[in-house]
Amino acid sequence: MKVRVLVRLKPGILDVQGAAVKRALAGLGFDEVTDLRVGKVIEVELPTGSLAEARQRVGEMCRQLLANPILEDYTLEMADDLAPREAVR
Amino acid sequence: MKVRVLVRLKPGILDVQGAAVKRALAGLGFDEVTDLRVGKVIEVELPTGSLAEARQRVGEMCRQLLANPILEDYTLEMADDLAPREAVR
Repeated sequence: MKVRVLVRLKPGILDVQGAAVKRALAGLGFDEVTDLRVGKVIEVELPTGSLAEARQRVGEMCRQLLANPILEDYTLEMADDLAPREAVR
Repeated sequence: MKVRVLVRLKPGILDVQGAAVKRALAGLGFDEVTDLRVGKVIEVELPTGSLAEARQRVGEMCRQLLANPILEDYTLEMADDLAPREAVR
């Protein structure tokens, strides 16, 4: 079972990397970008089991290691969510 | 309109950061993790417009700057996909 963890800076925290990328995009002509934030995606593969248990374990991983609770928020997306209706590759 | 870009190493490429995180998790007792990959999530905010146009522009940003086509794959998820059915915060 795959669990996707998205780790992003909390809204109030200055995202220096995002600002640099936004500026670089503007330099390439993509000046319509009004905001851009960069975060991490961590895809965790677990043995098959219950969704609730996987969510609980991965939440614990986030609290202990994957996210810095002072600066970052995290979001979990379970396997069922990972086939978005219109995603393109 | 928000577009989410997921940038991940291509499947054949060794993910050193992911291996380090997996090992650290095992050291904390999370030894059930069978695989773990780390990538980037980039959230791009664009003025309201057509989905097709936004997808085309952000795809162009990926090809020119956001992803390294030699090592990385990217996936776009449009605003409509960004409310997954069971995501938790």
